[in-house]
This record gives sequence, structure tokens and C-alpha cells, in this order.
Amino acid sequence: MENIFTDEYFMKKALQEAEMAFDKGEIPVGAIIVVNNTIIARSHNLTEMLHDVTAHAEMQSITAAANFLGGKYLKDCTLYVTLEPCQMCAGALYWSQITKIVFGARDEQRGFMVMGTKLHPKTAVVSGVMANEAADLMKRFFISRRK
Amino acid sequence: MENIFTDEYFMKKALQEAEMAFDKGEIPVGAIIVVNNTIIARSHNLTEMLHDVTAHAEMQSITAAANFLGGKYLKDCTLYVTLEPCQMCAGALYWSQITKIVFGARDEQRGFMVMGTKLHPKTAVVSGVMANEAADLMKRFFISRRK
Repeated sequence: MENIFTDEYFMKKALQEAEMAFDKGEIPVGAIIVVNNTIIARSHNLTEMLHDVTAHAEMQSITAAANFLGGKYLKDCTLYVTLEPCQMCAGALYWSQITKIVFGARDEQRGFMVMGTKLHPKTAVVSGVMANEAADLMKRFFISRRK
Repeated sequence: MENIFTDEYFMKKALQEAEMAFDKGEIPVGAIIVVNNTIIARSHNLTEMLHDVTAHAEMQSITAAANFLGGKYLKDCTLYVTLEPCQMCAGALYWSQITKIVFGARDEQRGFMVMGTKLHPKTAVVSGVMANEAADLMKRFFISRRK
């Protein structure tokens, strides 16, 4: 039997979250955290609504997943996020010792890679999953803001 | 008339917060945010109590100050924190465009300086204010945990 729980399957859920952010006038980034093929956290960027720079999708999902698990380490968890995490989110992921990060589009300006942020040595990274869909959503957002 | 509102004056308030963390069995780091000599946020590390790696003193104060100000940018604000911020907190401070950061003790392992995290070009940094007091509190904490 085919495994339906692919990285694309879960990234689609993160993209649905990003679309919710879009509809609220937020920079459209969405995230979910998965353990044993079960989604234990879902979130989207809320920095404008909450007037809070810390309200990135990843930060909310890290807090929600830890709350669900009852512990601060996100062992055996995978974060799916539509955009490459920033320094702040990568720093939080470092502390969480999360097992795997899967992201969509690169952020060439403010992503953790170009900024040189360190992830935990236990953390595996996969990039480029549904990157075009994530990048298109960002482009649509910034075009709509210019109008 | 002598100005009582020195960096030491405010760092003592941050140290009081760090002592509260100590008393709760948390790594003793405290922070406050000041605007026009008025404290608008106070916090201490709560990562153990909340099972949440994002509950660093700085993160809580950034959220509280933005909530107080009704906007996400911490213009004309100064953060006083007893320990050098980590990657996550420095990343959040980057987004906040905070005007000034004053910290006490260096964190040679996980501080933003050794990790290479970028702060916003608008942000001034002062280090070493009451560094011995902050470092002593950390040392006392780790000695007490070994017992």
C-alpha cells in the first residue's frame, strides 16, 4: 500500500495555514508539527494581528507541540514550514532539539542559512518541498500589498 | 541633581527578576524593558515551568512591551537582561528593531555573539553591566543543581 504520509502531504497542511495568514493580511507563512504521522500543532504567522514579532508560525507551533507533549524537547517531531525559518525561529528550534525540519521556499534575505544561525546537531533539514507553491503565495501577498 | 536612572539602576531590577527564576529552579536570567525611564515589562526565564524553550526572559519581555506599546517595534526602548541573549532572543530583538540592549554576563557557549547572530543595525549594545553579579547567580544555580 502506498504511504500517503509524504512530506508533500504534510506541507500541503502547512500551506493551508499559510493561506489563512494571507486571508488575514499577514505575511503568508504556515507551519505544522507532526509526530508519528499525527499533526500535534498547526499555526500561521500572526505578527500583525498580535503586534508581536515573536508570533511567527514556527514559534507558535513549537509552544503548542511542547504543550501537547508535556515536555520542551521535540524528540521524534518534524516541523513543516512553508518558508525557511529566520534566526529567531531557528534559535528556538535549536533549543527544542527537534528531530527534523522540512521547509518550502528559501528566504534569501532573512533565512537562517544566509544569517548563519546554528541548528542543533540532532536536527535533520530537508528544503524545497512545494517551494514554488510557498513562494507564489508570498509573491501574491506582496503584489496585493502594493495595490 | 544626580541621575538615579543609570544602567546599574535598571540592571538591578533585571537581577531581581533573575533571582525569582532562581527561586523557582529555573536558570536564573531576568529581563526588563524600559522606555523614558519607565519599566514597561519585567520577566524571568520560565522554560522549565512552562515546558517551553521559547519562554526565555527576553522573549516574554518583548511580547509584554509590544503589548503595552500597542505596536511591534520597540522604538526608544532599552532591554536590560542579566545574561547575553541567545540566537533565538537576538533574532526576536532583530525583528523588534529595539533601540538599545544592555546585558550583564557573557554567554561564551550559547550567546548571540559567539553564535554569529545579527542584530538590527538600529540597535546599540552595551555589555558587562553588573556582569559579576549575574555570573555569580548562574554559578550558584549550577552548583545547587549538582547537589
